[in-house]
Amino acid sequence: MKLNIALLAGDGIGPEVIDQAVKVSDAVAAKFGHEITWKPALTGAAAIDAVGEPYPDETHEICAASDAVLFGAIGHPKYDNDPSAPVRPEQGLLKMRKKLGLFANVRPTFTFPSLLDKSPLKRERIEGTDLVFLRELTGGIYFGEKGRRDGGDTAFDNCVYTREEVQRLAKKGFELAMTRSKKLCCVDKANVLETSRLWRETVQAMEKDYPEVTVAYEFVDAVAMRLVQWPNSYDVLITENLFGDILTDEASVISGSMGLMPSASMGADIALFEPIHGSYPQATGLNIANPMATILSAAMMFENFGLQEEGAAIRAAVNKALEEGYVTEDLANGGKSYGTKEVGDWLAAQI
Amino acid sequence: MKLNIALLAGDGIGPEVIDQAVKVSDAVAAKFGHEITWKPALTGAAAIDAVGEPYPDETHEICAASDAVLFGAIGHPKYDNDPSAPVRPEQGLLKMRKKLGLFANVRPTFTFPSLLDKSPLKRERIEGTDLVFLRELTGGIYFGEKGRRDGGDTAFDNCVYTREEVQRLAKKGFELAMTRSKKLCCVDKANVLETSRLWRETVQAMEKDYPEVTVAYEFVDAVAMRLVQWPNSYDVLITENLFGDILTDEASVISGSMGLMPSASMGADIALFEPIHGSYPQATGLNIANPMATILSAAMMFENFGLQEEGAAIRAAVNKALEEGYVTEDLANGGKSYGTKEVGDWLAAQI
Ligand SMILES: CC(C)[C@H](C(=O)O)[C@@H](O)C(=O)O
Ligand SMILES: CC(C)[C@H](C(=O)O)[C@@H](O)C(=O)O
Repeated sequence: MKLNIALLAGDGIGPEVIDQAVKVSDAVAAKFGHEITWKPALTGAAAIDAVGEPYPDETHEICAASDAVLFGAIGHPKYDNDPSAPVRPEQGLLKMRKKLGLFANVRPTFTFPSLLDKSPLKRERIEGTDLVFLRELTGGIYFGEKGRRDGGDTAFDNCVYTREEVQRLAKKGFELAMTRSKKLCCVDKANVLETSRLWRETVQAMEKDYPEVTVAYEFVDAVAMRLVQWPNSYDVLITENLFGDILTDEASVISGSMGLMPSASMGADIALFEPIHGSYPQATGLNIANPMATILSAAMMFENFGLQEEGAAIRAAVNKALEEGYVTEDLANGGKSYGTKEVGDWLAAQI
Repeated sequence: MKLNIALLAGDGIGPEVIDQAVKVSDAVAAKFGHEITWKPALTGAAAIDAVGEPYPDETHEICAASDAVLFGAIGHPKYDNDPSAPVRPEQGLLKMRKKLGLFANVRPTFTFPSLLDKSPLKRERIEGTDLVFLRELTGGIYFGEKGRRDGGDTAFDNCVYTREEVQRLAKKGFELAMTRSKKLCCVDKANVLETSRLWRETVQAMEKDYPEVTVAYEFVDAVAMRLVQWPNSYDVLITENLFGDILTDEASVISGSMGLMPSASMGADIALFEPIHGSYPQATGLNIANPMATILSAAMMFENFGLQEEGAAIRAAVNKALEEGYVTEDLANGGKSYGTKEVGDWLAAQI
């Protein structure tokens, strides 16, 4: 296969971890006979510094013309303390999601047996957890009309959803559930919100098309509780943008393996793959960041092209590294650890 | 002191646990020389069944004319599966909050040493946790304009806040922080929402009036994570209605003592006290429900009248019951347990 992949390294540790994912992907391509052309492009604070824009048009053109996007991380401390600054890295993220139509954020949370003790939860609560959130990513209160009235003393944000937006996200949820254990949980606040009632009735109407899937409807506050109590009771969960923002982050810390969690954001024409961790500015350039989440994001990318074996090869290499302790500082439990680059080299060599 | 207390027992186990709180409160009143007049009134499914309305005008009049409201729980399974039903118990709750002006929901999360092992979190994560959420309760997306367009295919919910609404909630937060460790965390999503930016700028402007309080600003997704990772790093947190709904429920399960957590909802003229647990329909009438959360809510009620010793007497009795194992089934760890009524009698006798 010939693949054009846009490479958005971003800020902080982004470039370092992206380098390792490129290395491992190239090893996969060499082994399985694919040809990857990487197209680097600017984003985040790095792009603001260079061209005054966190998601420049040129970057968008490169992404739109590619088969997929591999993304590092964005965010820089100099933008942290003023959320009303006119230009911020996050705006690039939102603009990118909207312009590329990345409507479904896929956020798996699973456990690695060797990392269970890192979880803040007791072992018996977390063991066997393997769930996936599908978060709607281009609608809701993120993109509705917002502003001020009364000379600035009243602020508003409008949350809007159309039936079509719910359907395309829910469809992905039903399809994913069919490939897993056929359990789907729709997370909403239908006892209060009209948008949630639209979500619920739309999903209810789709149930007949997937007779094998058992659908549960739960309120967002109840899910926030049960995620901590019994995370392994969930399988596939679908939800709107803001609830997804909160719940996927909550879910990410329960496994103890947050530094290893990949994600994907799917559009109709293109998909983006990125680690869930941030730009970790303090670690920039120190060769200590864990590249595995980005490398596993590359595995998701191959799998999304239908290249299951390629993805499996990466996952096997990562599992082996975890078993043999070929890991960065964060996973070394005070024992021997390796640099970002060394872990990348080792994983590429395994392929 | 002469106190008129509206008594809204509600549904499920509500009446049983309320009975115990009345008993313990009466014991406190007898000991300290107060006179409590209880004014029972209908609410929830019980009120729908009786008069077709979950928060009847008559109930509102009784509440509005009282010095405080003691509330049990509402919710009945027959309303669970249809969030769009025209009359639902929750609507009564929202109407009551709005009409009584209960703008600040106070939700403490603390630990009892003897219950730490019930937490899903590891002991070292949870030990020493003692935090309080102040959730704004009468504004935001709960009460903004909501509806449908495009023949029902588009739904919207408007989230609106005024500077004044933020100020009165934040003021309670600063004041509470002053009585505790002078740490306040403002939880928002100011990197995306205009209402959050209003929250943040309003709280920032108030900082100068409370020079001793250290204020932190954190995004709601980050708080959802850190609540699970390091709950004891928080003290007083203030937030808007929907974020508060999600985060206070998340916080409630981390301590392992959810069945014991009280809460208060404060207005300008009146306050309401209630356990955070629900109506637990399966346990109705079985004399097994734990009355302690309701009894501790009564303690908060006394304290809110400035009757600190009275509140302390209740807390001491509850602590003693926990130490001596005079508890309901849920806390008995398979050992000897007592009925709802017996625990109430025992606690009243301690006073
Ligand atoms: C940075 C922020 C705008 C973003 C979001 O809220 O979507 C982030 O939290 C995420 O989840 O990707
Ligand atoms: C029942 C529901 C409307 C209510 C809310 O969302 O406020 C409940 O979850 C709560 O937190 O008291």
